[in-house]
Amino acid sequence: MKNFSFVNPVKIIFGKDTIQEIKGEIPSDNKVLVIYGGGSVKKNGVYSQVMDALSGYEVHEFSGIEPNPHYETCMKVVDVIKEKGIDYLLAVGGGSVIDATKFIAAAVYFEGGDPWDILSKGAEIKKALPFGTILTLPATGSEMNDGSVISRVSIQEKLSFGSPLVYPKFSVLDPTTTFTLSPRQVGNGVIDTFVHVTEQYLTHYEGDSTLQDRMFEGVLKTIVAEGPKALKRPTDYDVRANLMWASTWALNGWFGKGIPQDWTTHMIGHELTAFYGLDHARTLAIILPGVIRVTWEGKFEKIRSLGYEVFDVNKIDQEVTIGETIDAIEDFFISMGAKTHLSDYGLGDEAINKVYKRMEERQWKLGESGNITPNIVREILILRK
Amino acid sequence: MKNFSFVNPVKIIFGKDTIQEIKGEIPSDNKVLVIYGGGSVKKNGVYSQVMDALSGYEVHEFSGIEPNPHYETCMKVVDVIKEKGIDYLLAVGGGSVIDATKFIAAAVYFEGGDPWDILSKGAEIKKALPFGTILTLPATGSEMNDGSVISRVSIQEKLSFGSPLVYPKFSVLDPTTTFTLSPRQVGNGVIDTFVHVTEQYLTHYEGDSTLQDRMFEGVLKTIVAEGPKALKRPTDYDVRANLMWASTWALNGWFGKGIPQDWTTHMIGHELTAFYGLDHARTLAIILPGVIRVTWEGKFEKIRSLGYEVFDVNKIDQEVTIGETIDAIEDFFISMGAKTHLSDYGLGDEAINKVYKRMEERQWKLGESGNITPNIVREILILRK
Repeated sequence: MKNFSFVNPVKIIFGKDTIQEIKGEIPSDNKVLVIYGGGSVKKNGVYSQVMDALSGYEVHEFSGIEPNPHYETCMKVVDVIKEKGIDYLLAVGGGSVIDATKFIAAAVYFEGGDPWDILSKGAEIKKALPFGTILTLPATGSEMNDGSVISRVSIQEKLSFGSPLVYPKFSVLDPTTTFTLSPRQVGNGVIDTFVHVTEQYLTHYEGDSTLQDRMFEGVLKTIVAEGPKALKRPTDYDVRANLMWASTWALNGWFGKGIPQDWTTHMIGHELTAFYGLDHARTLAIILPGVIRVTWEGKFEKIRSLGYEVFDVNKIDQEVTIGETIDAIEDFFISMGAKTHLSDYGLGDEAINKVYKRMEERQWKLGESGNITPNIVREILILRK
Repeated sequence: MKNFSFVNPVKIIFGKDTIQEIKGEIPSDNKVLVIYGGGSVKKNGVYSQVMDALSGYEVHEFSGIEPNPHYETCMKVVDVIKEKGIDYLLAVGGGSVIDATKFIAAAVYFEGGDPWDILSKGAEIKKALPFGTILTLPATGSEMNDGSVISRVSIQEKLSFGSPLVYPKFSVLDPTTTFTLSPRQVGNGVIDTFVHVTEQYLTHYEGDSTLQDRMFEGVLKTIVAEGPKALKRPTDYDVRANLMWASTWALNGWFGKGIPQDWTTHMIGHELTAFYGLDHARTLAIILPGVIRVTWEGKFEKIRSLGYEVFDVNKIDQEVTIGETIDAIEDFFISMGAKTHLSDYGLGDEAINKVYKRMEERQWKLGESGNITPNIVREILILRK
């Protein structure tokens, strides 16, 4: 195991009817800006629960954060914050709203240049506004980590940043808020969670990380068991609770410590979203099977363990084990409503070349060993036509 | 899943040669009291690493914290703290030293009575001294939780308390510090970790806690795989690292949230230690098989899952599954060097009656459902003669 130093300071408030508890978390004299997306929180009753909980505060609101949140929109929120003198942000939504809120919290205090530099140049953040979250779509783990992914539409870029200053102060996870998600949102959330795990788990590593491996397999087993139930019985509380809690643990940082991490699938997927607007999770469902197929060397024992523990694949032959495990993963993604090939989205050689060229321009080498060259990315994409 | 609200604020500094990093964690103008046990930290080099790391601080020290730390000793440390004007405590050792430090940190500021009330009456703590820990014996999870168990020799009592004010500010987990542990300490640590998991996992609960169940099974699988290796190859870094990290996760609070918890085995075991001085872990190794045998009703599915996932017990018949799982657990404890019956320690009816009488006097009802009466405790103990 590798050395690490880590603390995760996020307070989790979990369960039915817990939105009202935010009152105790936000200083009573703070001006609060409630940030949300397209308005589903108004339909499912979450918005009114939030507003009830904030009675007594000076509350402002900003709606219209997009999926794959736009830099341009975030900067509008920054203007509102400065104009109104906002002290505290409250993100109400899924990973997009939370990621946007993290960037906004940092951009408000960013000095000496364009806040886009935080994403494009890794410019240092020295201060951020405090914020809490009300999670309504389990998927990204953003409610309990310090990472954020933002898109800039005008230049078709989708980039990430992270800083300990953008951990939420608290996150409310009320599983009942997920009862009204569409099957597509449920499926995307489960697939995103699945791939967050494999990015940390399916790596080439000479050391032995038994504890982390078992934890990651546990998260995968949970979502493979509970995901399909959520599609069948949308209002089953315990199913929703397990999915919500599993997605948080897939990416709250703790079990990714002490080990290398891959993130090849996400890096390629982000480009497909940036160029063609595909749902984030659906890009992952396309790419992951190709990544495993092309980069399995040195990772076979982990692939074997994943196949056996999560999908009951139990074969002697190495080639068969890899093939059946990839097939099981792809079947699971399909069962959660995703399509798994570029052609399912009308994409082909042109898209492959576009992603390849960008990787070439940036001279990106992906993966935990930094050996996934643009040529290997093209090979992966060709497999997923 | 049940509602909960939780944050774990402990910073973990993990890995080889990380003791030196404590310098960045303790304010430079603080007077530091280093608290440790019987002196093994001087033999294994940890003491000198700590003193090197603290160069520049005003450092005092207190040695002689016992296993099952004594209230009487803790109160001596409180006097030293007041006399020297200590600002910050540093626990160097295993769970006993850390538990003692937690109690000391709280007792220093306790007003309006005997600090023993914190343990015997659950008296409220309003303030505590800050402290960090250097863990040298993985077992109790105390390095990342807010609980503590203290014994009062004069009245043969062993009681616990907990408060968010006694979370360590940081804990250093350097697996190399565990290379010199005796086989008995290694075995005890693994058994303690095992039973911390079963106290939270093997419960009767109508709800569905898939994520927690898989996480607990993951911790058990890890220690069942790595524990025997640590006895065979004491200086295998990754084995030690996995055991150390697993013992922290067995009881850092996170996976015990949202579910009921049992703790019957610990409550009975504490009495055996209080009366007869048995090692804590060895009391657990005696008691747990009896607790499962007597209280399995309503918990069969969890016992079956534990047996299958951790010990490959795969039988159709319920009675056989329970029997083989209990046998596998007992065999594992024996493989880690423990004896598992009262008679192995020269104890019999007299001890059983003594524990029974105390439970009666206190009218304790143990277990997650509060239905383990003194009579059932006696039944459990008789099975373990």
